[in-house]
Amino acid sequence: MSGLERLLDTEPVVVTAGVEVLAGALESQSVEVRRTEWSPPAAGTEAALAKLAAGPEAAEANEVAIARLLEVRPHLVDVVRAIDVIPGLTERTFLHAGPPLSWAEASGPMRGALMGAMLYEGLADTPEDAAAQLAAGDIELSPCHHHQSAGPMAGVISSSMPVLVVQDPDTGRVAYSTLNEGLGKVLRYGAYAPEVIERLRWMERVLGPVVGDAIRRSGPVDLRSLIAQALQMGDDGHNRNRAGTSLLLRTIGAALVESDIAPVADRSAVYSFIDSNDHFMLNLVMAAGKLIVDAASGVEHSSLVTTMARNGTEFGIRLSGTGDRWFTAPAPTVDGLFLGSFTAEDANPDIGDSAITETIGLGGFAMAASPAIVGFVGGTATGAVQRTLAMYEITMAEHPSYQIPILEFRGTPTGIDAILVTRTGVRPQINTGVAGKEPGVGMVGAGLVEAPLECFVQAVNALAEGTASR
Amino acid sequence: MSGLERLLDTEPVVVTAGVEVLAGALESQSVEVRRTEWSPPAAGTEAALAKLAAGPEAAEANEVAIARLLEVRPHLVDVVRAIDVIPGLTERTFLHAGPPLSWAEASGPMRGALMGAMLYEGLADTPEDAAAQLAAGDIELSPCHHHQSAGPMAGVISSSMPVLVVQDPDTGRVAYSTLNEGLGKVLRYGAYAPEVIERLRWMERVLGPVVGDAIRRSGPVDLRSLIAQALQMGDDGHNRNRAGTSLLLRTIGAALVESDIAPVADRSAVYSFIDSNDHFMLNLVMAAGKLIVDAASGVEHSSLVTTMARNGTEFGIRLSGTGDRWFTAPAPTVDGLFLGSFTAEDANPDIGDSAITETIGLGGFAMAASPAIVGFVGGTATGAVQRTLAMYEITMAEHPSYQIPILEFRGTPTGIDAILVTRTGVRPQINTGVAGKEPGVGMVGAGLVEAPLECFVQAVNALAEGTASR
Repeated sequence: MSGLERLLDTEPVVVTAGVEVLAGALESQSVEVRRTEWSPPAAGTEAALAKLAAGPEAAEANEVAIARLLEVRPHLVDVVRAIDVIPGLTERTFLHAGPPLSWAEASGPMRGALMGAMLYEGLADTPEDAAAQLAAGDIELSPCHHHQSAGPMAGVISSSMPVLVVQDPDTGRVAYSTLNEGLGKVLRYGAYAPEVIERLRWMERVLGPVVGDAIRRSGPVDLRSLIAQALQMGDDGHNRNRAGTSLLLRTIGAALVESDIAPVADRSAVYSFIDSNDHFMLNLVMAAGKLIVDAASGVEHSSLVTTMARNGTEFGIRLSGTGDRWFTAPAPTVDGLFLGSFTAEDANPDIGDSAITETIGLGGFAMAASPAIVGFVGGTATGAVQRTLAMYEITMAEHPSYQIPILEFRGTPTGIDAILVTRTGVRPQINTGVAGKEPGVGMVGAGLVEAPLECFVQAVNALAEGTASR
Repeated sequence: MSGLERLLDTEPVVVTAGVEVLAGALESQSVEVRRTEWSPPAAGTEAALAKLAAGPEAAEANEVAIARLLEVRPHLVDVVRAIDVIPGLTERTFLHAGPPLSWAEASGPMRGALMGAMLYEGLADTPEDAAAQLAAGDIELSPCHHHQSAGPMAGVISSSMPVLVVQDPDTGRVAYSTLNEGLGKVLRYGAYAPEVIERLRWMERVLGPVVGDAIRRSGPVDLRSLIAQALQMGDDGHNRNRAGTSLLLRTIGAALVESDIAPVADRSAVYSFIDSNDHFMLNLVMAAGKLIVDAASGVEHSSLVTTMARNGTEFGIRLSGTGDRWFTAPAPTVDGLFLGSFTAEDANPDIGDSAITETIGLGGFAMAASPAIVGFVGGTATGAVQRTLAMYEITMAEHPSYQIPILEFRGTPTGIDAILVTRTGVRPQINTGVAGKEPGVGMVGAGLVEAPLECFVQAVNALAEGTASR
């Protein structure tokens, strides 16, 4: 039976798109209606989308950009002192998460983390002294993303911190992230109590050197493979990293037994520190992510999103085709589960570079692989699957390595297309930790948030401005 | 609207059960038909099921038995030499998987493993000498299940082997299993080449003592908790134990760094040996399983299945209410994925005590938690979920600790009821490794198999015989 015969042979069905009043009126007349999920493009993008759709530039550029994103093979190769490797870092420069920011604009947790870094570096003796120096502009603030780096939550990187070195063996390119401190009262959530500073000093003195030595003994750790395996074990790569942390420990554990770089007690303490923190792997994923998105940056006309990052005040994105320009909107609030007696009242708006995981097809985009994450960020397992399914609407590829078993090993939705985001109104899904809004508090919860559409509206317009009219 | 009004107010629908010709005839007359999945009880169980259903004994006994099964808290406490702890084990007794068996009845892989144990124990110099002594009855063969033990595949335990000691702190009761050798050419799959024997000797000399010391340093390992966490990380507890093995290594890793029982090279080799074998956790799950099913045994009138085990020739089950009596049928063949150039032609029938995992609500019963397992045993992720869902039809409880995230944290179907198996015809789902049918070959694949209904028919009739008529 041909399509036409089938059409004439069966009951007619009305397919509606958009305007609900039409569908309702038909249904009240007993007409069968099938609603599509279509909605009009985001307001203010009509002309830009029309211009971008008129020529082949964006589509061609996106093929190049997504191919570059997918071909990176990040390997963990070392742990070294930040100032020794990070370009542009000085003793009086602090890197931070998200788009550029001044002390005056900084939220509570960002201020807390910057103050903590002053104390840790010995640049201030008291929190008050630290705040005064920062307010006076004595320290230069600069986004991690401008320095081949990414940091979770406040994301502060200062000169003495040990950093993970992740490298692509094919190109030699590198990216960096700090080592994860654990949960609760930690610098990245804005805490700066003495125990926080003491832990940072132990990480500098013991954790960094011992882990670095173990990695050099074990040989480079293939993070693409490790992340792929972790997804098959229920990780999402952002807020559930229990499997990835386990597999990393398996990889370097024998070297920790063998190492002679530190006394047995220190090596045992390093093992236990990593074992006690299921988020340890997050910072490795983020450094890998930075290597990946930087490789996909700078492809003229491409609407690929290469950065999604929040500084606690603003949410910012960058596109491959618009270079280093940030498109920002106020950081949204997170729909979350709160720890102990904390409530939504205590929560700072969304913060951190960790949305780099979503930018490379993990985190909120891979939640179908990670149903157990809902115990941490809220929602249902079914909802986790649906969030992943929705992300296929706005992405360029299904990741060839990051597979989701429950979806019959379909690749995670990877490579956000700002054109698709504005055309569909489907916003990128992020899962995230939540920091207390007051400096010094630390972590108050975890939850779900969507990237603000406004960033994508600006970005698509800027991209269209750079595209020749036809 | 009352139920009656609703009935009169709506179109009638015919619900059919069993006989398909009836449903078909109605549908050909445009009557709406809903089929139930009912099928008649297994042939030969009608009278027994009627008798068991007539009184409260079975139901009451099952409440007791399943409560005992669920309350056990297995803890890994030590690794010791088999002959020092296993009741009834002598230097000339070999334990084996499944129901009782003679050399004459033994399959190829069982013979291979018994011959390997002769070589390992120094009781024979050549495979031929070993086979001759075994054929002459010089060695007593006895099921692991008769000695508080369980062994995967051939399941051979001989006097010098190191065994895991798993204990319930509430009762002091213990159970044992060997340490897992890895995959490929290994004793439990019937291989006995020099490399197999050499590995067993290394396990005796190094692996057992070092792991035992690490466990004593770390303190008892709560296996119920560890298994529960592993299910949230994609394990099924039978043929996917990657998460459990990882979590075990995390638990004892710091102790391996600290230990002074062996040189660094030996402790590093132990770490690497466990890291290289994702099945290492299986034997812990099996020893835990043995502790669990033994606690639930011996409840008069209970139709709870306390044993499902295969010796490579026969599949045997035991019920709580029929004590030590075995009900056996020919071991079925496995529907599997084969390694390299092996085919179904090379496969031995189903073998091993590892179906103890299914007996306690894991393995085939927990495959919905483990969609990635289909890469090892075959099938689809959707099929894995469906297999778990089917098992709720024949089980007494949803396990309170073993939760399946993708089913919104529903507990695994636990505690097989032989009455339900025979009443529904739904057979217990098992996933399993496959041994080569010739002695000496080793592993040839892995796959899926269902327990033979015939065992359950015999068992239910025996149970009914012990129940007073009313």
